Amino acid sequence: MAATMKQVVLAAYAQGNPKPGDFRIEEVPVPEAGECEILLKTLYIAVDPLLRFSVDETVLTGAGRMELGQPMVGPVVSEVIASSHPDYAVGDVVEGRSGWQEYAVLAPDLSDYRGPPRKLDRSLAPVSTALGVLGGPGQTAYEGIVKVGRVKAGETVVISAAAGAVGSIAGQIVKVLGGRAVGIAGGAAKCAALLDLGFDAAADYKAPDFADQLRAAMPDGAEVYLDNVGGEVTMTVLPLLKRGARMAMCGFIAYYGVGMEGPGPDRLPGFYRLIMNKGLEIRGFAGMLAGQQGLEDIARWMKEGRIRFAESVVEGIEAAPAAFSSVFSGHDHVGKLLVRVAAQG
Amino acid sequence: MAATMKQVVLAAYAQGNPKPGDFRIEEVPVPEAGECEILLKTLYIAVDPLLRFSVDETVLTGAGRMELGQPMVGPVVSEVIASSHPDYAVGDVVEGRSGWQEYAVLAPDLSDYRGPPRKLDRSLAPVSTALGVLGGPGQTAYEGIVKVGRVKAGETVVISAAAGAVGSIAGQIVKVLGGRAVGIAGGAAKCAALLDLGFDAAADYKAPDFADQLRAAMPDGAEVYLDNVGGEVTMTVLPLLKRGARMAMCGFIAYYGVGMEGPGPDRLPGFYRLIMNKGLEIRGFAGMLAGQQGLEDIARWMKEGRIRFAESVVEGIEAAPAAFSSVFSGHDHVGKLLVRVAAQG
Repeated sequence: MAATMKQVVLAAYAQGNPKPGDFRIEEVPVPEAGECEILLKTLYIAVDPLLRFSVDETVLTGAGRMELGQPMVGPVVSEVIASSHPDYAVGDVVEGRSGWQEYAVLAPDLSDYRGPPRKLDRSLAPVSTALGVLGGPGQTAYEGIVKVGRVKAGETVVISAAAGAVGSIAGQIVKVLGGRAVGIAGGAAKCAALLDLGFDAAADYKAPDFADQLRAAMPDGAEVYLDNVGGEVTMTVLPLLKRGARMAMCGFIAYYGVGMEGPGPDRLPGFYRLIMNKGLEIRGFAGMLAGQQGLEDIARWMKEGRIRFAESVVEGIEAAPAAFSSVFSGHDHVGKLLVRVAAQG
Repeated sequence: MAATMKQVVLAAYAQGNPKPGDFRIEEVPVPEAGECEILLKTLYIAVDPLLRFSVDETVLTGAGRMELGQPMVGPVVSEVIASSHPDYAVGDVVEGRSGWQEYAVLAPDLSDYRGPPRKLDRSLAPVSTALGVLGGPGQTAYEGIVKVGRVKAGETVVISAAAGAVGSIAGQIVKVLGGRAVGIAGGAAKCAALLDLGFDAAADYKAPDFADQLRAAMPDGAEVYLDNVGGEVTMTVLPLLKRGARMAMCGFIAYYGVGMEGPGPDRLPGFYRLIMNKGLEIRGFAGMLAGQQGLEDIARWMKEGRIRFAESVVEGIEAAPAAFSSVFSGHDHVGKLLVRVAAQG
């Protein structure tokens, strides 16, 4: 093993959407594991859109804001390569938040509220899925469609950011439940990928005739809207929803780069008007509430061949800053976007 | 009876909030009742804020937009002074939508979806209450607190426009259910009137320390928010709500004068952020769904002395345009604002 390793540190807080230049790669000594600690070799990094808040200067310290010069912290899958902790053995693969670095030392007994690193069942699926369909994004999709959306057979569900980590799973859960899945994504290639995943219809938000595409995709409206985006996309969706529709809101990527107030004209009056006129029910949720039940259902549906996982992988830790930045600019990847840092074993 | 009568006609569509000059008083012949028709003498006019949409040029005809030069249509209480219809006798007092005029002829069998004029039980309460606590505003308050808000004993409920027709009833229903009622109103006098009605606390949105007042009124936050207003008031309330709070939305008087987009900076990003961070549940509702059950419960609570009605009355049909306009500029009245057009009998 090398004596030094690379890590991605935050060089500057993001102004608007994150840019690769907000980060830098540093070469530091590989840490050593002490008593009851484990040494982890990072296999995959998830460039999670929610990490936007960690690089936001306006977020309170303690609510998750990173300090400048520190390595980025976020969900990763890694392999235990040294352990003096009774619960972890060399060769175990775990999912945790040990950050954007090639190696990390963790003390499982001193974990925060998220708990100790989660040991993965490698027989179930490739370990990278612990960052996608069998991790946070899968749980969020399950919660949005099953718990908050309460989707029933025969209902139409429209999903924004449908080619993303959450959306690509959510649409497939809709199909398992007997609903009709309509996906919104950017570009013809992504829309084709949605149909390939089993969505019934797709609309391209980057196309000039987006509203017409969407109307054609759901001529009778929709009972449920899973929203991860906000902004222009949502203002196009809402007028097409049925009266009394449920909107499950798990993100707002259109607004991650702005604070409480955006640059354009005030869209809140129109949002109020649509909520009232349509008698909409809106529920914000943070995912992770469906918990183990959600992951077990998804794992079973995967075994039955009813849910496929989609992921896009870029190679090398140096690629992480650009991959993370691309999440906010409508990149071309489908499914969960991962950075492969090292091979297993 | 005079041969002519006064009516209030729409002279110009409202630009922003309605102004008295948008209306004019006309003198026209008193109509005569034909076969199966009734002649009504108007007693009270309700200057309902929702009539804002009737005077909005941007609203589609058929969705309720008035034609210029026509008498305003809206909820009134009137007395039957001639009838050739078997269901209505001279002396009956009814609630219907015969408009802002001293007399009107109606054909009950040709009523729209709202149904024929509703005969009032004069032993229950003064007939004017059919436009307030025992009419649409009472039903909206009931629906917001009981059905949408699902208020339970011990919960704190914050109510915007609390001195208005809906809010003043809603707070009292909260007390009947064993909850804690916090009202928001404009001015110290209105806030005092809320406490007099039984609200536990009040905050003055016109005061420079409104946010501090509100925080002091609900130091532990609130489980339910009944919103009739939107805008600055709501953006002050939301950060104080408890996680998972329910927001029942029955109006947005701050935005009635604007279209889909308001003049200021875009507040929708902040609204999204608060919905997500708080895990809020928001439900738009139009009132009138609680129906007969709501009115019966309210009538019983009134008999038991647990709900008092509040109304403010201005005199004479000529006062209607100014009274209606005052609804949108934070007037000083408490409870339902009515115009008394004539005495009964």
